[in-house]
Amino acid sequence: MWKLPQPIDDINSQYVQEARARHDQLTKPPGSLGFLEEIGIRLAGIQENILPDVDSAAVVVMAADHGVTEEGVSAFPSEVTVQMVLNFMNGGAAVNALARNAGADVHVVDIGVKSDIPNAAQFTERPGSRLWIDKVRYGTANMAKEPAMTRAEAEEALQVGWRMGETLYNQGYKMVALGEMGIGNTTASAAITSLLANVPVDQITGTGTGLSAAGVRQKVATIQRAIELHNPNSADPIDVLAKVGGLEIAGLAGLTLACAAYRIPVVVDGFITGAAALAAVRMDERVRSYLFASHQSVEPGHQVVLEALGLRPLFDFSMRLGEGSGAALALPVLKAAARVLREMATFAEAGVADGK
Amino acid sequence: MWKLPQPIDDINSQYVQEARARHDQLTKPPGSLGFLEEIGIRLAGIQENILPDVDSAAVVVMAADHGVTEEGVSAFPSEVTVQMVLNFMNGGAAVNALARNAGADVHVVDIGVKSDIPNAAQFTERPGSRLWIDKVRYGTANMAKEPAMTRAEAEEALQVGWRMGETLYNQGYKMVALGEMGIGNTTASAAITSLLANVPVDQITGTGTGLSAAGVRQKVATIQRAIELHNPNSADPIDVLAKVGGLEIAGLAGLTLACAAYRIPVVVDGFITGAAALAAVRMDERVRSYLFASHQSVEPGHQVVLEALGLRPLFDFSMRLGEGSGAALALPVLKAAARVLREMATFAEAGVADGK
Repeated sequence: MWKLPQPIDDINSQYVQEARARHDQLTKPPGSLGFLEEIGIRLAGIQENILPDVDSAAVVVMAADHGVTEEGVSAFPSEVTVQMVLNFMNGGAAVNALARNAGADVHVVDIGVKSDIPNAAQFTERPGSRLWIDKVRYGTANMAKEPAMTRAEAEEALQVGWRMGETLYNQGYKMVALGEMGIGNTTASAAITSLLANVPVDQITGTGTGLSAAGVRQKVATIQRAIELHNPNSADPIDVLAKVGGLEIAGLAGLTLACAAYRIPVVVDGFITGAAALAAVRMDERVRSYLFASHQSVEPGHQVVLEALGLRPLFDFSMRLGEGSGAALALPVLKAAARVLREMATFAEAGVADGK
Repeated sequence: MWKLPQPIDDINSQYVQEARARHDQLTKPPGSLGFLEEIGIRLAGIQENILPDVDSAAVVVMAADHGVTEEGVSAFPSEVTVQMVLNFMNGGAAVNALARNAGADVHVVDIGVKSDIPNAAQFTERPGSRLWIDKVRYGTANMAKEPAMTRAEAEEALQVGWRMGETLYNQGYKMVALGEMGIGNTTASAAITSLLANVPVDQITGTGTGLSAAGVRQKVATIQRAIELHNPNSADPIDVLAKVGGLEIAGLAGLTLACAAYRIPVVVDGFITGAAALAAVRMDERVRSYLFASHQSVEPGHQVVLEALGLRPLFDFSMRLGEGSGAALALPVLKAAARVLREMATFAEAGVADGK
């Protein structure tokens, strides 16, 4: 089994306590910033700093294709994956606009798009937002007929994600938002979530980017068939990722593990990145306290994932786009939570009387 | 009765329609950004521009004192109002940290603090974030014994707020967040909301900055006594503001009316700014579509206000600070909604296949 290249520590409870104590000294009624205080306190525990700073953030969009699209599980054709990678590189997608809004870079990783990215070189040489070509294979196999990938490929995808996390750490990023692009990946995510959260497929499967009711039934049947055919071991997340997963999902799981190892907070987007984060948590429970949920999407499996992760989302905006759009939207809120701890004056510093 | 210096127009339904049509052409499944799309579409209607831009934002914190604090309705002493104004000017309050996070200026208006601001001159000469001295009177009277202010004073406070809106418009701000500071002002807001939303006082009154249960009962009794004593005409918002209101609340109502007249979106914070926005809506219904709710606070009256305003909050973070903290936290989300419309590529521009 793939081993973590570096161990993951729990977040530091001493800094959690000290940040909580500091919050009660800041010029406001104790607890009056509610959930924003809880976010900041956890950031302090992650960074081992009661004055946390997550201003430098990266959105990582892992892109790959899914052989299961042959079964008609998506409203969009597979070709859209590579088209959207180009859109990301040209700055025209939702995640680009939302990342710019948050002052964050967008790193796109081709970990398994089924074609080569046209003119990739012009995008791989840029500083900041750029493209990374780290293909494990040209799309997964159709899980309805054969395992999505081999175990070795799943481990390689985990390793690609891990290396990306190390690279971002070395580049000085302080917060990572998870994003994905891969036509067909809600199908893989539903299969993974069903197995790792032990919830029936039909309670998880939704419309993705816009299926009809008949399309959803077909999608459920396809996933059930794949699970019956390959019988993944739900106690072995890598087996699950290999048999019914996706390259970008395994990559995001590896990235999440690396971020936790390097004490970088990870912002989960929607259903697909949530399934990846759940796989990471199943590989190491300590990942859990490094995760932040950005939003509650309309995809039914997302609720299941958030419950399994024990996360409270910041927004409930009926979003269902993916790409990292919700996570990018959440970045300014997490930055705000850190900034409040870092920049607010205490009652003593400001000469303000505290409550009776 | 005080007349609007300039009429308020409805938001432009043609731009609303065009922005909605544009959203369906952007490179994402139609509607997949959910509530964020609705926000952007309304901003387009307000600005009469399908590429809205609200990046330049101001948080306006109106500060004033309340004679009713004599009745023991607050956990903090009145002196905290002026101390917090100094904290705002020194950049150490929550609203400062959150406004910096949003790239917004903080304008503090002394519309009725009961003492003079020490060394005010050093704060009134700054560019950007600054102090405005526009005192209508030194705090309100104790509404439990006499009307909070005269009708002429309430109208003057409305006019101060209106002028502030005009000034911000002339300075080029594209979005205004409402904030307030005034020990005792949840008492005034509960009285106003009870009258303007026609809901009993005891269903509106909460703990403010930290009252005990006995304190809340005392607060309810105080408000009921004030309403019985002065019998404000609930069909006349200015009469309500004068008899049981506050100088900062009337100022914020005037500011809200001016923003609507100048087509500037207004972000409401919590209960107090919500009561001010409700007074503005009662003076002119067309104000309503210029308003955005930032969050759902734990103050029970806030839910009543949001329902009366017909607004859906962005966050539900159990916040109860005021100052404009929730509104400042929401600014990046509103900017994001505008940026998505302004910066995303269409399917045609990006060469991406749209759904089957």
